Amino acid sequence: MANESGGVCAARGFRAAGLHCGIRAGSEETKKDLSLIVSDTMCSAAGVYTTNKVKGAPLVVTARHLADGRARAVICNSGNANTCAPDGEALAQETCRLAGEALGIDADDVLVASTGVIGEALSIVPFEKGIPALVKRLSYDGGAEAAQGIMTTDTVRKETAVQFQLGGKTCTIGGMAKGSGMIHPNMATMLAFITTDACIHPSLLHRILAEDIKDTFNQLSVDGDTSTNDMVILMANGMAGNAEVTDDGEDAEQFRKALHQVTSYLVERLAADGEGAGKLIVCHVEGADTKDDARSISRSVVSSNLFKAAVFGEDANWGRVLCAIGYADGDFSTENIDVVMRSEKGSLTVCRGSRYFEHSEEKAAEILSADAIHIDIDMHSGEEQADAWGCDLTYDYVRINGDYRS
Amino acid sequence: MANESGGVCAARGFRAAGLHCGIRAGSEETKKDLSLIVSDTMCSAAGVYTTNKVKGAPLVVTARHLADGRARAVICNSGNANTCAPDGEALAQETCRLAGEALGIDADDVLVASTGVIGEALSIVPFEKGIPALVKRLSYDGGAEAAQGIMTTDTVRKETAVQFQLGGKTCTIGGMAKGSGMIHPNMATMLAFITTDACIHPSLLHRILAEDIKDTFNQLSVDGDTSTNDMVILMANGMAGNAEVTDDGEDAEQFRKALHQVTSYLVERLAADGEGAGKLIVCHVEGADTKDDARSISRSVVSSNLFKAAVFGEDANWGRVLCAIGYADGDFSTENIDVVMRSEKGSLTVCRGSRYFEHSEEKAAEILSADAIHIDIDMHSGEEQADAWGCDLTYDYVRINGDYRS
Repeated sequence: MANESGGVCAARGFRAAGLHCGIRAGSEETKKDLSLIVSDTMCSAAGVYTTNKVKGAPLVVTARHLADGRARAVICNSGNANTCAPDGEALAQETCRLAGEALGIDADDVLVASTGVIGEALSIVPFEKGIPALVKRLSYDGGAEAAQGIMTTDTVRKETAVQFQLGGKTCTIGGMAKGSGMIHPNMATMLAFITTDACIHPSLLHRILAEDIKDTFNQLSVDGDTSTNDMVILMANGMAGNAEVTDDGEDAEQFRKALHQVTSYLVERLAADGEGAGKLIVCHVEGADTKDDARSISRSVVSSNLFKAAVFGEDANWGRVLCAIGYADGDFSTENIDVVMRSEKGSLTVCRGSRYFEHSEEKAAEILSADAIHIDIDMHSGEEQADAWGCDLTYDYVRINGDYRS
Repeated sequence: MANESGGVCAARGFRAAGLHCGIRAGSEETKKDLSLIVSDTMCSAAGVYTTNKVKGAPLVVTARHLADGRARAVICNSGNANTCAPDGEALAQETCRLAGEALGIDADDVLVASTGVIGEALSIVPFEKGIPALVKRLSYDGGAEAAQGIMTTDTVRKETAVQFQLGGKTCTIGGMAKGSGMIHPNMATMLAFITTDACIHPSLLHRILAEDIKDTFNQLSVDGDTSTNDMVILMANGMAGNAEVTDDGEDAEQFRKALHQVTSYLVERLAADGEGAGKLIVCHVEGADTKDDARSISRSVVSSNLFKAAVFGEDANWGRVLCAIGYADGDFSTENIDVVMRSEKGSLTVCRGSRYFEHSEEKAAEILSADAIHIDIDMHSGEEQADAWGCDLTYDYVRINGDYRS
């Protein structure tokens, strides 16, 4: 099962490190700002990127380096997004060159990612100093410090790992993620790096990843802002020794399930640590006509500023849930909707058949006093379901984002 | 020119009134909750409504009563949206019947609107008492109290009027609006009632209104939540004595311009009084390839939570403007964008050619210290332009919406 130990070094043959190289103000203890993940052997690799039309320079370089479906390393800095910045693409390329040189591998096998402020010039100087030092620090239990190095306004590291069987071999998938604000469906300022020792063909790997994110990373919203820099990278080095998985079938299904455990865990942790968040909101929609309807409805609910503010206020304002359902994309009936609010403190039907369903406001307030709030919606129309993850809208979100750059 | 005097009684032959009938807690002085507008003669009338799939019961009844393009009166309550409420449609219909009876007109010529909490039962009792009292109070200068009666979390009334010439006759258009939260493109919790003494055919009236809102009410966002109840009603009683305007031409153009002055003024006032708003944000986009691109880009900027929070913090974080442009709907280039920030305190280019343009942070902060902030964007690609209106995201927005129902 997914858990809080593990990370990008949980799978065999992956080393990692993170350190402070001076891109951000602060010190080694307070602000690591550069991370590296390296596989001992060549990996199948796949990436998915933001849909924002303004794309960070690192995404362009990473997509180019992933064109052959192969990679060995990922270098990632925080503190500056290298987006709308002068000579950004040359700088991202040079970062890969420095990492390749220090690791003794081809620069084309290095992927690069950045997160932080948009539009400020990024200097190569901290990388020139930091990358050789990072390579020296690489270790098979460096996952935690690598996870620290990619954090921006995150308050906690997000890491997990799971084990599963493929062709009689035990495989592991581990991952780390960052992201706190500017998070909205379609890869907002969110980075996730996932490693596995399973052996799997690049094209299948890409297909499985692209499918999975529709139900995980693209169902996550912190603030409605789809960022310029986000990506999910999945690297598979094959060191578990299983026969290469090349197409759909039982093995691919096992891999898909294990990956989903990792990604859904990371997504939940990202939502719970959304900028200023006090409460995690998970919306489950069932009884929808189509999968897309279920996804858009659940996403609309967790994205509603009004409902997020109501959750902050522990107010069971289910009318705002109906309102958010009503403006979700899709052509569906809103005539027979049930809404249940649920947490570790209990469960309560607040709306049945799209109408008020008598309930105790006191009980509702008690349920909403928990840290994780579940909104379960039944559209009573079809068979499809989906989940989406978000967080409440708080004073702290406004404070953090009113003063991000200082 | 549009101004703060005038309102729904500025045009000849319109009377109005507002009072407290008990739908909301409070008194006559503090919480008027019922308003009525009546024309002395039958009007051409047109309405546009929310695109939310969950629609308030009053919208269904109003659309039915407007099917013939004629109306005489509008009755509107605040405090309860009559949406997802038991027997809502019957109640909205009964409200029209009571108003028609008290006015001595056909119930089918009465339009009805409601705004407030979703999902709570609305009683007919306050209407039974309030409507006859309202009719007694009707006066040719009752516009201001009618504008008060439709307010919810609004802090100020929004009214305006303009005069213009049609076929040698002086005509007037006046209007009032309410709306503070749950406001987003496509008629969010926003109500506007506009009256004119011009004589104009219903089908042309509807066409002009539907076209105008694309550049006004649908370019307004306070919080991204598209409400269930909103509508804009335009009534023309013809008492100015001009020859009926029936089709496009010079007269229709004059009317269009006058209407746009009224609607754009009301929209700006709605944005400036957004829930918790400290600052108005107006985004002007030019140089876009298509009108739709210009609209979606400007709307995306004023809708971005991150940019709204930056404006609250008086932080010239133009990277968030580029980010919001990048995720706007449309297929357009983001390679050569200029961004200027402007207010009564000055003007500053912060981004040129989609890159940082050197500027003084102190000067930028001074510009952003004003109450009305203009973001001027040049896409350098085509000839189209559009505006959008919004407000900053503040602690007060969270406070108001964390505790709306109590």
